[in-house]
Amino acid sequence: MIGRLNHVAIAVPNLDAAAALYRDTLGAEVGPPQDELDHGVTVIFITLPNTKIELLYPLGDNSPIASFLEKNPAGGIHHICYEVEDILVARDKLKADGARVLGTGEPKIGAHGKPVLFLHPKDFTGTLVELEQV
Amino acid sequence: MIGRLNHVAIAVPNLDAAAALYRDTLGAEVGPPQDELDHGVTVIFITLPNTKIELLYPLGDNSPIASFLEKNPAGGIHHICYEVEDILVARDKLKADGARVLGTGEPKIGAHGKPVLFLHPKDFTGTLVELEQV
Repeated sequence: MIGRLNHVAIAVPNLDAAAALYRDTLGAEVGPPQDELDHGVTVIFITLPNTKIELLYPLGDNSPIASFLEKNPAGGIHHICYEVEDILVARDKLKADGARVLGTGEPKIGAHGKPVLFLHPKDFTGTLVELEQV
Repeated sequence: MIGRLNHVAIAVPNLDAAAALYRDTLGAEVGPPQDELDHGVTVIFITLPNTKIELLYPLGDNSPIASFLEKNPAGGIHHICYEVEDILVARDKLKADGARVLGTGEPKIGAHGKPVLFLHPKDFTGTLVELEQV
């Protein structure tokens, strides 16, 4: 069911410093910051040959990553995103297998303009998993 | 400098359950368990179309992931691995930029039979980074 690894998302306490680290020290292709108001984050995409790294920084008062950064002040891997062909088919299969979908269970539009859902980390080996329909 | 994302490694408290989750619930291609005595882990590789997920389970008395699982009993993402063309060139560039290389600083042979190094999470946005020469 799952296809490509779309991205690994890393929450960072300093977006400029993290962008410089990936661009100058690690020599990767680093995009511009993008404010995602609906998701409460500013994101920077790092393009690797086969997938992307998504740097996440809190935006606004109710950012979903603020508490993560409180617990992990140096930053850390926040979630991984797998691509699926049909997000509703995937959701229904996962729910039938007993996995919990976060929020209302209805897909939202993610940072790439595609429908996304998040799955409960406790049902996925302690890992927050995003599914994105491509 | 960094190339492809070689894999995302997830430490898990129950290898059979994690393999079944990825095979049956997420529908991915799951390989057989492999004991890596030199690294103190049993690993299972999950092959996605563009990269791999590496499930890690402690092996032996001094497994480097035992303390991670004590802190994260449900499991969690342990590290990410980027490919580099020349691991010694990469290491020397990173050290010159002030990043810390773990252990002796000399590459070891990793789970794929290739030279690997680990970088200090505090220098990489709270993320344990493995470099693998390909």
